[in-house]
Amino acid sequence: MDLRTFRVGMDGAERVTERMKRISKELGLDLSPLMADPKKIGDAEEKNCENMFGHVGIPIGLAGPLRWTLSTGEQRGTYLPLATTEGALVASINRGCKALTEAGTIRTRCIYHGTTRSLAFRALDGGTDVARELKDREPEWRAVGEGTSGHLKILRADIDEREGHVFLTIACDTDEAMGMNMVTIAAAEIGNWVAENLPVEFVTVAANVDGDKKPSKRTHDLGRGHEVIAEGILPRATVENILKTTPEQMVKVARAKLAVGSQIAGSIGKNLHIANVIAALYLATGQDAAHVVEGSLGDTTVMPEKDGLRVMVRLPALLVGVRGGGTQLPAQNTALKIILKEEPSLHPRQLLAETIGAAVLAGEMSLLAAQAAHDLAMAHVKLAR
Amino acid sequence: MDLRTFRVGMDGAERVTERMKRISKELGLDLSPLMADPKKIGDAEEKNCENMFGHVGIPIGLAGPLRWTLSTGEQRGTYLPLATTEGALVASINRGCKALTEAGTIRTRCIYHGTTRSLAFRALDGGTDVARELKDREPEWRAVGEGTSGHLKILRADIDEREGHVFLTIACDTDEAMGMNMVTIAAAEIGNWVAENLPVEFVTVAANVDGDKKPSKRTHDLGRGHEVIAEGILPRATVENILKTTPEQMVKVARAKLAVGSQIAGSIGKNLHIANVIAALYLATGQDAAHVVEGSLGDTTVMPEKDGLRVMVRLPALLVGVRGGGTQLPAQNTALKIILKEEPSLHPRQLLAETIGAAVLAGEMSLLAAQAAHDLAMAHVKLAR
Amino acid sequence: MDLRTFRVGMDGAERVTERMKRISKELGLDLSPLMADPKKIGDAEEKNCENMFGHVGIPIGLAGPLRWTLSTGEQRGTYLPLATTEGALVASINRGCKALTEAGTIRTRCIYHGTTRSLAFRALDGGTDVARELKDREPEWRAVGEGTSGHLKILRADIDEREGHVFLTIACDTDEAMGMNMVTIAAAEIGNWVAENLPVEFVTVAANVDGDKKPSKRTHDLGRGHEVIAEGILPRATVENILKTTPEQMVKVARAKLAVGSQIAGSIGKNLHIANVIAALYLATGQDAAHVVEGSLGDTTVMPEKDGLRVMVRLPALLVGVRGGGTQLPAQNTALKIILKEEPSLHPRQLLAETIGAAVLAGEMSLLAAQAAHDLAMAHVKLAR
Amino acid sequence: MDLRTFRVGMDGAERVTERMKRISKELGLDLSPLMADPKKIGDAEEKNCENMFGHVGIPIGLAGPLRWTLSTGEQRGTYLPLATTEGALVASINRGCKALTEAGTIRTRCIYHGTTRSLAFRALDGGTDVARELKDREPEWRAVGEGTSGHLKILRADIDEREGHVFLTIACDTDEAMGMNMVTIAAAEIGNWVAENLPVEFVTVAANVDGDKKPSKRTHDLGRGHEVIAEGILPRATVENILKTTPEQMVKVARAKLAVGSQIAGSIGKNLHIANVIAALYLATGQDAAHVVEGSLGDTTVMPEKDGLRVMVRLPALLVGVRGGGTQLPAQNTALKIILKEEPSLHPRQLLAETIGAAVLAGEMSLLAAQAAHDLAMAHVKLAR
Repeated sequence: MDLRTFRVGMDGAERVTERMKRISKELGLDLSPLMADPKKIGDAEEKNCENMFGHVGIPIGLAGPLRWTLSTGEQRGTYLPLATTEGALVASINRGCKALTEAGTIRTRCIYHGTTRSLAFRALDGGTDVARELKDREPEWRAVGEGTSGHLKILRADIDEREGHVFLTIACDTDEAMGMNMVTIAAAEIGNWVAENLPVEFVTVAANVDGDKKPSKRTHDLGRGHEVIAEGILPRATVENILKTTPEQMVKVARAKLAVGSQIAGSIGKNLHIANVIAALYLATGQDAAHVVEGSLGDTTVMPEKDGLRVMVRLPALLVGVRGGGTQLPAQNTALKIILKEEPSLHPRQLLAETIGAAVLAGEMSLLAAQAAHDLAMAHVKLAR
Repeated sequence: MDLRTFRVGMDGAERVTERMKRISKELGLDLSPLMADPKKIGDAEEKNCENMFGHVGIPIGLAGPLRWTLSTGEQRGTYLPLATTEGALVASINRGCKALTEAGTIRTRCIYHGTTRSLAFRALDGGTDVARELKDREPEWRAVGEGTSGHLKILRADIDEREGHVFLTIACDTDEAMGMNMVTIAAAEIGNWVAENLPVEFVTVAANVDGDKKPSKRTHDLGRGHEVIAEGILPRATVENILKTTPEQMVKVARAKLAVGSQIAGSIGKNLHIANVIAALYLATGQDAAHVVEGSLGDTTVMPEKDGLRVMVRLPALLVGVRGGGTQLPAQNTALKIILKEEPSLHPRQLLAETIGAAVLAGEMSLLAAQAAHDLAMAHVKLAR
Repeated sequence: MDLRTFRVGMDGAERVTERMKRISKELGLDLSPLMADPKKIGDAEEKNCENMFGHVGIPIGLAGPLRWTLSTGEQRGTYLPLATTEGALVASINRGCKALTEAGTIRTRCIYHGTTRSLAFRALDGGTDVARELKDREPEWRAVGEGTSGHLKILRADIDEREGHVFLTIACDTDEAMGMNMVTIAAAEIGNWVAENLPVEFVTVAANVDGDKKPSKRTHDLGRGHEVIAEGILPRATVENILKTTPEQMVKVARAKLAVGSQIAGSIGKNLHIANVIAALYLATGQDAAHVVEGSLGDTTVMPEKDGLRVMVRLPALLVGVRGGGTQLPAQNTALKIILKEEPSLHPRQLLAETIGAAVLAGEMSLLAAQAAHDLAMAHVKLAR
Repeated sequence: MDLRTFRVGMDGAERVTERMKRISKELGLDLSPLMADPKKIGDAEEKNCENMFGHVGIPIGLAGPLRWTLSTGEQRGTYLPLATTEGALVASINRGCKALTEAGTIRTRCIYHGTTRSLAFRALDGGTDVARELKDREPEWRAVGEGTSGHLKILRADIDEREGHVFLTIACDTDEAMGMNMVTIAAAEIGNWVAENLPVEFVTVAANVDGDKKPSKRTHDLGRGHEVIAEGILPRATVENILKTTPEQMVKVARAKLAVGSQIAGSIGKNLHIANVIAALYLATGQDAAHVVEGSLGDTTVMPEKDGLRVMVRLPALLVGVRGGGTQLPAQNTALKIILKEEPSLHPRQLLAETIGAAVLAGEMSLLAAQAAHDLAMAHVKLAR
């Protein structure tokens, strides 16, 4: 699909319209909401934003196609809608897609940990072993929590006892939604039930152990929402021909930057610019922009391999949904359809998560290669100024 | 300004238009770009997004007015444009603005650390003391770096030596821009100069010590971009009448959630939902969404005070600009004007940073109070579903 | 028992001998190994130290009695043998013992996580799901590991997959020994078995996930060896009369020092001087001095309570034994007997751990009180110079 | 020097005595205090340990000679006295000494940060800018602090402002002593002076920002006491002949264990068993055992090099002295003399620190090699049981 050749004299807005038409034809999708009258706001004014008095438009570019193997073993090819104002980002991811697609070895895996929320309690009577009582009566409060929504199922519950408080963290399957609100409502009901049935004070329904929208070592280690791994081997020829560098050079930069530099910085996770790729995909598809914080907690790894490079990203915490929140706005929903098109046998929420994993790997490898070839700054010179 | 009373029968789009008019009149600003024809994209297709084929609109709501005292001692009153798809967020921040404004005690302070970029080198000759040579020749490479732009000034340079690598981190004043690209270009030139003049290999121009778009303990501790502190005292009456809870109750929740819960999570920073407030302001004003990661590293503190509550947020890393990047897009630039309107004697970039600081304090106090009053979940029930 | 009044003219060595006699009589224990001919070294030359050519003597002082309630509900009273060269430490712990004993409210709890060792593997065939295979064949390799010693039982096994490696961490009950060597031997056999039966490379038998003798966030959070909590309430009168300060003053110092200071330092755990107390008890009782590192990971908490102070320490990782290693040396074994004397129904290893927990609480409260009363430096002036 | 061949029929105690004689002759030092009558306790009963009633003896073994190049460029050869009850440790360090000595390439460097203590203050008048006032009046309080001892000089002062508190951290040159008490006394006087001269409350003289005896990220990053780096190249032949493995194998284990395993554990620092080596040297030479915690914060690095292995340890925080505390006890002082014998032009405290650095490198390389050769567990089997 040609997105670069246009009739002479077209201005930016005309090129955008023309590109939309070509993509629409290629994908067989109606993309008009991406250019719609700003008055077509769906339910936004009622559901998404109080005192709404307009909107800001984030430009959306296309990268891909990106081809890889899903956790189901199915081959998958997709285009990536990317909402960003940072020049060079779409071009860079696009180059990564080309490399990964040519390599033909990339696979994604996914563990669904569910959306979590932690409650805090304090014993009113010092002698009560709140942790044990909570554990013993789990079937009861679990029923209370699951009773709040037909879409919510508690997958797991953790109890932490620290400094005079007991923390209960529930991890929930929230069906097609990211589900933070759904889980908070369940947690509140559980908290009220516990306060009525145990000699405790219910201190708060959101006690930060869950690490929601925060950079948390626990989230990095144990995962939250979807944990996705994308990995494979880039043949030497792919690295040289598409990424314009060598496996050895990429390993050298990765060692300085990821193994040593990130440690000096005291980062949770060590990667190149995962936040960029995730932000662009979250904004395009109507996810919560503040969840970019947890998205950024990933680790990128490259290792020398016979005749190539073993590459991997681990994203411990993708909090995404395909229903509710910003996903229902017309433009965002259209971008989502580009990714979910021709669904395979995967749950759509997981398909979105695995797609993000593969896209992040594309973005990471392209930038690592650019730095290995010392042309990062030059790319910005040309594209951003 | 009344943003809630409308003629019967108006639909959402009509209410948005009507609200825009009222705000426009109140502020004396042309807000039409916030509703503009999506074809009016300015330079976006050339500068901000390759393969652009449309845009996604993020609803923008209004909170405020928020009144407080700037670091200059000047009184400031402003409205806050917030781009979000998370129902209840604007309403919550709005309540916080009301409380802070009524308190009349809030002040902001700001330290400008500059935008940083770190380079990595390795000695080609094991015997070379690269760190010392770099230090000795600072005037030379500093001139090289500052020669790349009339807008860039190197404020400070740090050298770290670790595991066989030497890292040079430059912190730059980038005038009205956030300036990450500008700094990267300067860093690249410095790196090239060093490689030519010292017996070293220039490994990478972006070596992660800077923590750009990553959750970094060093950034949390030492600051990056603007470090802003917003603090003051909420009288007991304000807490009770506007926030509908008590200082004691807020302290209790803060202890469980911030002091204990965040520690269990292993968070860098301990706060309630700083990422939410920062994401909404960054998206509205055209900042880089991936910088929400560093924005999220803040600490929120409440302490009992005679007849009230001492409150504080410290935001160590606001990477913001008022020129370049997304700030030049028509809608974003309009939102920026709402904040920068009637500039006081402050540098506009710092005015933006201090405004974000005060807004974050409003958002944190409102949510803390909501949790203290146990009505968080209920708010979501009512507003989001 | 009077340890301070002596006949005029006695020198230090004579006072030590006289004190030993009085304690020996009080406890009904033969304490002569603590003054023994240095040639009585037991098996040290063969089992504990190659090229042994002498020894260094660490002075051992006595604190106590300390009375509290064990996890079994039994009352316990004990003296504490403390090996240290830091003047003022024994006196400070002694004062803490007095306060805790008078309070009469202190209880200890204990969770035994077992001694851990982690192995690292790499798949020889990229397609192998090593983690799953390890999980599936757990009964087989578990039998191999447990077959290496009649004293070892695998309590739990964790599998982590990261950056191309699979880590298997076994947590073992090692009976009366601390058991690090025993567990390493079992781990080595397991590793060899896995390498023979799965298509993997066995990279190392000690892969650092266990955090042995390192300051590890995971160890802090999840525990290793014995996790002990000691807690209770200090009545206001006890704080005032014995600790010479007030609950309010102690809370204020704790807030500055533990909640804020430790966070700025980026400490794992937040406490006053747990390492001091643990080092003195470990050296006295023949534990491995390098395990003081993990001992230091504790958290100390004080909270205002009606008419007093709720106090607590959580020690997540006490790696102790009552058999093997340094515990068999004559002097060390004698010190151990002082603690294990008249064993209650507890396993002796756990009795030692809970005693350390109570002793640490005594040491923490005494020092916190000293700082609250601003006399820390003065104590050093008087005692250490 | 032969420490292994003895007349048939000697028991352990006789072998120890015989070994002491041989070492004494070789070094020209009187080593009898290492076997002295336990009643010869020097000033221990008065200065080091209240209620002293005996001592525990820690066996002391000898490793070496270890030869390397000091930061002054001088060649240095020394034996290492190691106090330990962990079988196999002395033998392992001894092997490392042999490898490093044969390599002939090892050098140490040292930065003296001084001993630190942090004070905490709170403004009594909310409007006071305590941090600025402290900075402005530094000459005054610095004179107060330095006036407390003729041996103390303030090298540097850091001010941190966080959560309503201001922390002042002083870093002091304490001459030949480790000097923690000396610095605390100076800090107390400074605190009192500040409380008298500024409108502040002096909250505590030991506010944990200094990280004394705690595992602190700040200490790891910025250093405390002596920061020592020991590095060099191990030729392939040395690795193969003495360490019985290959550079490639050592790199592979290091990657799994140090780069990945330590990160999963969430360790501050990544090393093999630095705490073991430091504990053995600290106990032998009368350092404070609780400072092993900070000693353990080091990083060990190995990198492939043409025909060999580049190796390095960085020890950020060696808190050591050659006067005061346990160093004055007869046996400890004798062990210290073994290390300080024939002093070069270095300050003796720094000579001790650099020696520890070289010794740690020996210990790390020996253990890494043992794990690379998979014989760790076997060594324990043979030596420890």
